[in-house]
Amino acid sequence: MAADFTAWVSTHQSLFEEVLKRLLPQAEVMPQRLHSAMRYSVLDGGKRVRPLLAYAAGELAGATAERVEIAAAAVELIHAYSLVHDDMPCMDDDVLRRGKPTCHVEYDEATALLVGDALQSLSFQLLSEHQLNDDATKQLQMVKLLAVASGSRGMAGGQAIDLASVGKQLSLPELEQMHIHKTGALIRAAILLGAYCGNKLSDAQLERLDHFGKLIGLAFQVVDDVLDCEADTATLGKTAGKDADNDKPTYVSLLGLAGAKEMAQRLHHEALETLGEFGEAALRLRELADFIVLRKF
Amino acid sequence: MAADFTAWVSTHQSLFEEVLKRLLPQAEVMPQRLHSAMRYSVLDGGKRVRPLLAYAAGELAGATAERVEIAAAAVELIHAYSLVHDDMPCMDDDVLRRGKPTCHVEYDEATALLVGDALQSLSFQLLSEHQLNDDATKQLQMVKLLAVASGSRGMAGGQAIDLASVGKQLSLPELEQMHIHKTGALIRAAILLGAYCGNKLSDAQLERLDHFGKLIGLAFQVVDDVLDCEADTATLGKTAGKDADNDKPTYVSLLGLAGAKEMAQRLHHEALETLGEFGEAALRLRELADFIVLRKF
Repeated sequence: MAADFTAWVSTHQSLFEEVLKRLLPQAEVMPQRLHSAMRYSVLDGGKRVRPLLAYAAGELAGATAERVEIAAAAVELIHAYSLVHDDMPCMDDDVLRRGKPTCHVEYDEATALLVGDALQSLSFQLLSEHQLNDDATKQLQMVKLLAVASGSRGMAGGQAIDLASVGKQLSLPELEQMHIHKTGALIRAAILLGAYCGNKLSDAQLERLDHFGKLIGLAFQVVDDVLDCEADTATLGKTAGKDADNDKPTYVSLLGLAGAKEMAQRLHHEALETLGEFGEAALRLRELADFIVLRKF
Repeated sequence: MAADFTAWVSTHQSLFEEVLKRLLPQAEVMPQRLHSAMRYSVLDGGKRVRPLLAYAAGELAGATAERVEIAAAAVELIHAYSLVHDDMPCMDDDVLRRGKPTCHVEYDEATALLVGDALQSLSFQLLSEHQLNDDATKQLQMVKLLAVASGSRGMAGGQAIDLASVGKQLSLPELEQMHIHKTGALIRAAILLGAYCGNKLSDAQLERLDHFGKLIGLAFQVVDDVLDCEADTATLGKTAGKDADNDKPTYVSLLGLAGAKEMAQRLHHEALETLGEFGEAALRLRELADFIVLRKF
């Protein structure tokens, strides 16, 4: 990884942490327990892959940081809410997330439920209360884009397919469908929303960018499955091997470890090709693609 | 109740049911179980008080039915999601809602969790994908309005205050704060969103309308507490007396049955006064205020 990229990542991760601290309701504001639990669930966690993708796409599209950071936060809040709900006993029943007790363990289940609900509302509040595009009609499209990516035809739908697949032998296309919804939709939304904050890109270019997002979103999941299979609890900060234990289909269970790694590399290669026409301007997106695929193996 | 009003209510309830059937994802569309559960949780239920308020406010503001019904659906989906989550074991643990098994009983808890999440996303999708105002900037304000009304400073926040109040002796102002958030925010949003679909009203008039919403939202909750105390399970279609059993503070527990009824009547009176300047054009809103306060006692 280029030193320059490492610096870019850590700068933006730090900046973004401050953005989130500012945008989340303060813990002193009533209802305090809910606000405290919202901050607990969002702050100080994760690599912020989606926000980084939004920043990189925003740079490509000539967007200001002030606009991109709001779009990035909106996407990250959706991601954070999905983790809180996903960890609950009726879903994955996880007690550890990013090395900390999950929200329902640290607080309680009812609070975790409300934290997720309120984070989703806050996400749409952010997208509507800040000016993110000179054209309000375009901004409404951004709201729609995130709503669709989050809903029953996007992330929540992917979770539902995931639930229905436990204990079943899925085909590769079926597994792909699940992940295109579950993880892919939000990664694509992050990239597009970042790009929508600027106005440099044509519709055809936005479409290429979306295709890049689709490929990299899938690669992200394949790598996740590989890591889940290889890593131990300490490294991942979550209970390792859990999907396999739950008898959930994964790319590793379908393709074997070597096959899954090969697939990740193929997707990575295709994703980089998709960025070809953008030249140097897409450097950060290219580096992020490397970052997503090459982390830890 | 005037025959004319009764007809207006039932016409709009029927029309609105068709609107919801059209706007909700079809049960045959993947993921089928999730979509089926979303339809189960929203369709064929309730008096549709919020949508009726939106229609009435829309009429006052000169909005077309095509616009108002989308805004009304957006609000009703938020309401429906909150009921699904509220009924879950970690919250109120209710098995019956509107005379039918609750979503997590008919389906399962994980599905109920996702149903709520996806209904919220769908609500914001509706508000952003249909044109609801000639001015897109105003429509973004509508998105913000619903997001704030749903979130941690609105409905979800009210739920959190409610959770924190179990077993506690609240003062009347504290109880009021809880309900202004929990029920009131969404009722106000219904009225304002209906009105925002038209363009006949001045800012000052919108403010009066909002004040009417605040009063009637509170009255709605007081009446709910009275009904909960008086009604039996059969009439309400939900487990009666549950709040009192759970040692939750209610207007009846604070003011007594007679005191609570008196408070409802006072709020009702004030609400009607607020509509004074609108004259005949506010007839439906006035009748709805009567409907809300006078149902069942």
